[in-house]
Amino acid sequence: VQVSELSPEAVERGGYRHFMLKEIHEQPAAVAETLEGRHTDAGVLDAALGPGAAGLLDAAQRLQIVACGTSYHAGLIARYWAEEYAGLPCEVEVASEFRYRSHAVAPGTLLLVISQSGETADVLAALREARRLGYAGVLAICNVPESSLVREADLTLLTRAGPEIGVASTKAFTTQLTALLLIVAAFARRRGRPQGEAELVRSAVALPGAIERVLDLEEPVARIAEQFVDRAHALFLGRGSHFPVALEGALKLKEISYIHAEGYPAGELKHGPLALVDSTMPVVAVAPHGALLEKLQSNLQEVRARGGQLFVFADDAAALRSADGFQVVPVPAAPAPISPIVHTLPLQLLAYHVAVLRGTDVDKPRNLAKSVTVE
Amino acid sequence: VQVSELSPEAVERGGYRHFMLKEIHEQPAAVAETLEGRHTDAGVLDAALGPGAAGLLDAAQRLQIVACGTSYHAGLIARYWAEEYAGLPCEVEVASEFRYRSHAVAPGTLLLVISQSGETADVLAALREARRLGYAGVLAICNVPESSLVREADLTLLTRAGPEIGVASTKAFTTQLTALLLIVAAFARRRGRPQGEAELVRSAVALPGAIERVLDLEEPVARIAEQFVDRAHALFLGRGSHFPVALEGALKLKEISYIHAEGYPAGELKHGPLALVDSTMPVVAVAPHGALLEKLQSNLQEVRARGGQLFVFADDAAALRSADGFQVVPVPAAPAPISPIVHTLPLQLLAYHVAVLRGTDVDKPRNLAKSVTVE
Repeated sequence: VQVSELSPEAVERGGYRHFMLKEIHEQPAAVAETLEGRHTDAGVLDAALGPGAAGLLDAAQRLQIVACGTSYHAGLIARYWAEEYAGLPCEVEVASEFRYRSHAVAPGTLLLVISQSGETADVLAALREARRLGYAGVLAICNVPESSLVREADLTLLTRAGPEIGVASTKAFTTQLTALLLIVAAFARRRGRPQGEAELVRSAVALPGAIERVLDLEEPVARIAEQFVDRAHALFLGRGSHFPVALEGALKLKEISYIHAEGYPAGELKHGPLALVDSTMPVVAVAPHGALLEKLQSNLQEVRARGGQLFVFADDAAALRSADGFQVVPVPAAPAPISPIVHTLPLQLLAYHVAVLRGTDVDKPRNLAKSVTVE
Repeated sequence: VQVSELSPEAVERGGYRHFMLKEIHEQPAAVAETLEGRHTDAGVLDAALGPGAAGLLDAAQRLQIVACGTSYHAGLIARYWAEEYAGLPCEVEVASEFRYRSHAVAPGTLLLVISQSGETADVLAALREARRLGYAGVLAICNVPESSLVREADLTLLTRAGPEIGVASTKAFTTQLTALLLIVAAFARRRGRPQGEAELVRSAVALPGAIERVLDLEEPVARIAEQFVDRAHALFLGRGSHFPVALEGALKLKEISYIHAEGYPAGELKHGPLALVDSTMPVVAVAPHGALLEKLQSNLQEVRARGGQLFVFADDAAALRSADGFQVVPVPAAPAPISPIVHTLPLQLLAYHVAVLRGTDVDKPRNLAKSVTVE
């Protein structure tokens, strides 16, 4: 396992107790930086992806996203955007699986690789495998301009998040999503969906402010964190573009609090994991507009009857009210495309405050390295 | 929640302590029954899929598999087969996600739905949504001839597993995989891969015998089960076509023992879940030919250094030997295509024996219904 050469002590924490908390609070600025100079009021500037971008994007008929860990979750969210706003068929796979299996590649498939460091071994191997397989080209989303990934890709969109020291990725994730929003918008225009492009760009412009507002939830989330301190398990549920948000919320909690948290598409609850639910298993639901919650009603009764606690992060538009065994955290409403990004922040804060209360090494959790440069 | 109308008491358990154990042992016969009359020595008979099958299969250029729970895991394994042996692009999605999102459907995409009961609400809704979206046709794999799914599909391949009473699916899963083998073989011929078709059919013919042999592992697996009784967690790891086997092994353990087991692609271990590993978290690896194990070596040291226990189910060809903190269960070698099916059985037996030792209601686990006919 290799560790980053950056010494945490060498970088200013800027008054924050941990780098992770500093990086969580840097997200409004990091996202604004990632957007800077890359769009007009109505559309994305192809030049933001570098010379030759227009031709490669024109030729792409499908998208194959490949990444690991948190970056993989960003890819999963982008898939919902690609199919909904650009009508672009999109698949997403973890790099360690992609690189070792046989592929039936459709002509005109563009490979999109995502990695904060640009040195993730499996992602680099997947890129090289894709060259061999005849993909139409390689587009990278990366945070490190001088990385191997950037050198080997045909096009790069840099995330401009600045150095991320905490092993648990936060601002790298939300800036990756910002970059993905821009890329999907560029495809929407090409596929005859100008209204899709305009909606994505309008939403992206609203993103820094929306993230800033959701950071105000830190206090109520810190109070909820107290209820997780003694837990060994948690389930995170979501639907649609908020299902990967549930996966990401669970991963954050796993990484830094060592609580065994698992993310699930809410509709799969009855196909197995519901058997796990009892008073020791809190259930976190990410439920914009209450759509998820309505579907969960029949499960809810069982969760509560068994003494289970439910924590719901829902758009304040859903107007849900807390009750016994059922706590609601209203999340400021945001345009639909950026709702999954906005809902990620309270889950980052939850994981952070649970870890602090449990006394773990938040910025350097056990067993994990910042950049996975070996298999 | 609706429950099956079949009374368990009305059906003979045939000397077995639970229906689940009976159904595990019925798998060699159920798989043979599913194969019966559907193939020659060298190929699949299109007529097995009913009149009109040849035309629909000829027209299909891509496959979209949709299912829930255990049937979803069968679909995930079939994807590896489709791309490797038939060169057929294939995607797999859980039905509750598929039905509610926007889709960019490529022309010539065949929908393949899988459901034991044929009454799973989300699967039926996905089928109807696919009709609206212009899929090229609907092929169903189902165990109940008179079900809604069979009535609504264009083509059906019945699994002939007989009634499955245990809520945790076993023989339904392996017969679904048998049916999927046949379907992929039929595509292999069409896509100019006669050697792929022949290999799949040869492997399918060997399947009942291979399953029979792996059932001999019941005693050693039951001994390993004793080491899981007091655990609250487990991680299941696999790669490639054995990654869904890990998911299925974890789901079985979840469903009937209420241990929080989670399946992961082995390559993702370092991207988060490794932080969870300590002496309370056994790690189960499904490692045909030791390929997975070689990649896991660097992680292994950390697992063992933290007092973690590793349980490896590996082809006996891998010639691994047990050591301290590292227990190997040699699984009889089988042809590559059916290796994921063969490796599933010891995990079914593991979940069963852990549940019996924990004293749960094995055939009717808490909170779960056999057929999820509501959302």
